[in-house]
Amino acid sequence: MPTPLLFKIHHKSKENAARTGTVTTPHGSFRTPAFMPVGTRATVKGLTPEQVRATGSDILLNNAFHLMLRPTDKRIAEFGGVHKFMNWHRPILTDSGGYQAWSMADINTIDEDGVTFKSIIDGSKIRMTPERSIEIQNNLGADIIMAFDDCPSSVEPQSQNLARRRHALTVRDGKMTGQQHASRLLQSLDRTACWLERCDAAHQKKDIQSLFGIVQGGVDLELRARSVEQICNIELPGYAIGGVAVGESPEKIAEVVKFTAKLLPEEKPRYLMGVGYERDLVTAVASGMDMFDCVLPTRNGRNAHAFTKKGPLNLRNACFVDDLGVIEDGCTCSSCATGNSRAYLRHLYMSKEMLAGILVSIHNIHHFQSLMIDIRRSIEDNSWSALPNRWPVLHSP
Amino acid sequence: MPTPLLFKIHHKSKENAARTGTVTTPHGSFRTPAFMPVGTRATVKGLTPEQVRATGSDILLNNAFHLMLRPTDKRIAEFGGVHKFMNWHRPILTDSGGYQAWSMADINTIDEDGVTFKSIIDGSKIRMTPERSIEIQNNLGADIIMAFDDCPSSVEPQSQNLARRRHALTVRDGKMTGQQHASRLLQSLDRTACWLERCDAAHQKKDIQSLFGIVQGGVDLELRARSVEQICNIELPGYAIGGVAVGESPEKIAEVVKFTAKLLPEEKPRYLMGVGYERDLVTAVASGMDMFDCVLPTRNGRNAHAFTKKGPLNLRNACFVDDLGVIEDGCTCSSCATGNSRAYLRHLYMSKEMLAGILVSIHNIHHFQSLMIDIRRSIEDNSWSALPNRWPVLHSP
Repeated sequence: MPTPLLFKIHHKSKENAARTGTVTTPHGSFRTPAFMPVGTRATVKGLTPEQVRATGSDILLNNAFHLMLRPTDKRIAEFGGVHKFMNWHRPILTDSGGYQAWSMADINTIDEDGVTFKSIIDGSKIRMTPERSIEIQNNLGADIIMAFDDCPSSVEPQSQNLARRRHALTVRDGKMTGQQHASRLLQSLDRTACWLERCDAAHQKKDIQSLFGIVQGGVDLELRARSVEQICNIELPGYAIGGVAVGESPEKIAEVVKFTAKLLPEEKPRYLMGVGYERDLVTAVASGMDMFDCVLPTRNGRNAHAFTKKGPLNLRNACFVDDLGVIEDGCTCSSCATGNSRAYLRHLYMSKEMLAGILVSIHNIHHFQSLMIDIRRSIEDNSWSALPNRWPVLHSP
Repeated sequence: MPTPLLFKIHHKSKENAARTGTVTTPHGSFRTPAFMPVGTRATVKGLTPEQVRATGSDILLNNAFHLMLRPTDKRIAEFGGVHKFMNWHRPILTDSGGYQAWSMADINTIDEDGVTFKSIIDGSKIRMTPERSIEIQNNLGADIIMAFDDCPSSVEPQSQNLARRRHALTVRDGKMTGQQHASRLLQSLDRTACWLERCDAAHQKKDIQSLFGIVQGGVDLELRARSVEQICNIELPGYAIGGVAVGESPEKIAEVVKFTAKLLPEEKPRYLMGVGYERDLVTAVASGMDMFDCVLPTRNGRNAHAFTKKGPLNLRNACFVDDLGVIEDGCTCSSCATGNSRAYLRHLYMSKEMLAGILVSIHNIHHFQSLMIDIRRSIEDNSWSALPNRWPVLHSP
């Protein structure tokens, strides 16, 4: 059966592993490298689909775990799928909910077959297996769906607070010895590979939905290589790197991504999950990654953090009280272009007005999309090295 | 000096005192009868100016009291006025903040000259006089500004909870005998008239801002007549009825408005403050009122209350969980026109997502603007009596 996802590479950088391309799905296409805003519960927080679209976004991400709990995947299937439900008629990717099953719920059991956990909504017991995760995502109907994987745990207690992002290595089953932990990591890799086979076998809508496999392995490059071998052994429309940006240094992220990306099939889109800040994205693109998602533009936007080419602004700061400038001179986002001043935005934040987070979320997503446009241009113009001149934030430590 | 406000009456109903017209201000014109959404702190909660505009709104209301406290009227003056500050370049009306000085702050003293109260932001002492209120409103720069009046208090403790709307008659200075209260009411009328003279004398921007006087008098028709005489004794571009919709029955509101409206100058716009539900608006228009403001569309929108021609819906109700219909069939608001279903909106409310209140606020303001359009057409077509056929909500008790 032909894949419903076409990936055409347009240009490969002469300076590094970066490439530009177009991914075409049943709901339209998007240019790569691509940034996907996060719309966890079938809404990019505070923005209408028209406003999301106006930021230059072509594809967004929903979370299968949250939508399975409410309004339920069955209901969304009856509604005709998540595109229609949330009124976004362009490409959508759903995260499998694997990580959320661990991070957001009390796990009762985890075994070879799957996970049983308590609902965050009503405490009811929910069983999640690779088959059920794919059924949920088949019901939701996103263009790209993600494998359900086994997320092993870190033995370092100090990393627990940091391990809030997808596929963190967190321990919930008590302390382990180093030997036990190494053994658990290997078990999780094998289980993830086994579960991917089951995901692929369970996938009922290969004609309209494309399943991506997820490579794990933490910061251990040997484990990453082993995971790539296992995951790419299954022929799929695309592959993702999970388990990064869980508190490692930017250098460590860069090392893992650079090492892993080049092992992934060149002709398939490569998706780096949950990353990140501007510099992380640029570094990952240079390593050959094509797709990204991150909550930073919206979550930080709600917290008065505005991204600019020169670095972030905290719009609650008193220095903005009389600042009549827009967030960023020359910015073409609908917030800056209509003249909303830093002073006005600060007033809205201080007054706890919803519009503050809305306008700055719009600006921030537009900022990330502008970076992606410039990244693509830099690849196609062979002017990669000039990118940091236009984006001074890439210089900051 | 010529007034910067032109009021042209287009058509007078043959069936009642209703009329259509156009008010022209330095920031453009609006058709009357007109409904003004409320943007207390220089933002209609959750909506961009473009979204407010798309509901069919031509003029909105800001609150001088809130903006004086934050970001301060002086700052807004330095920014070039509230239109520029909030990025709304059409007509704006500012409420004087008279009522808020009483309802939202601890009053320390009230005397012939003005009021001293504590800031709701930092507890600092603030002195408000008619002169200061007009200075604030001159600084804000709205097209229409309101007089600062003395709001007397009701002796009935049971009405205190209801007295949350502008110019309620609330007691803060303890119990009064009936005789004391009657005397206080008379004092407040005389003081309001005296303060209006001072407002008019203090008004520095008669070339670009139009001061409206406010008639008080509660539900006592004799006092209303006396107040009209006092207030209209001062030649102003428009007049308002304050102190209604503070918990009276719709019949009582209708009686007071009908009695008072016909005493106001016919050639000037007549503004009924803080009213109200659809039936209250229609009744007031029939009595000859031209302008309205109310928080209902936005406040109720945030609380899952959607207005329809057939009456309100509570979108949190379980009956909407599988309802694929839009809020109202045939509605042309941007929420309904793009197909957002009741099921989706319910999901957003249950998930505490900001977008719920945003989409329903858009629908609700559009609902009120559609009613005003239909009211104006009914007046001009002499088909007033057919209005309730198209708006069944007008029949409900």
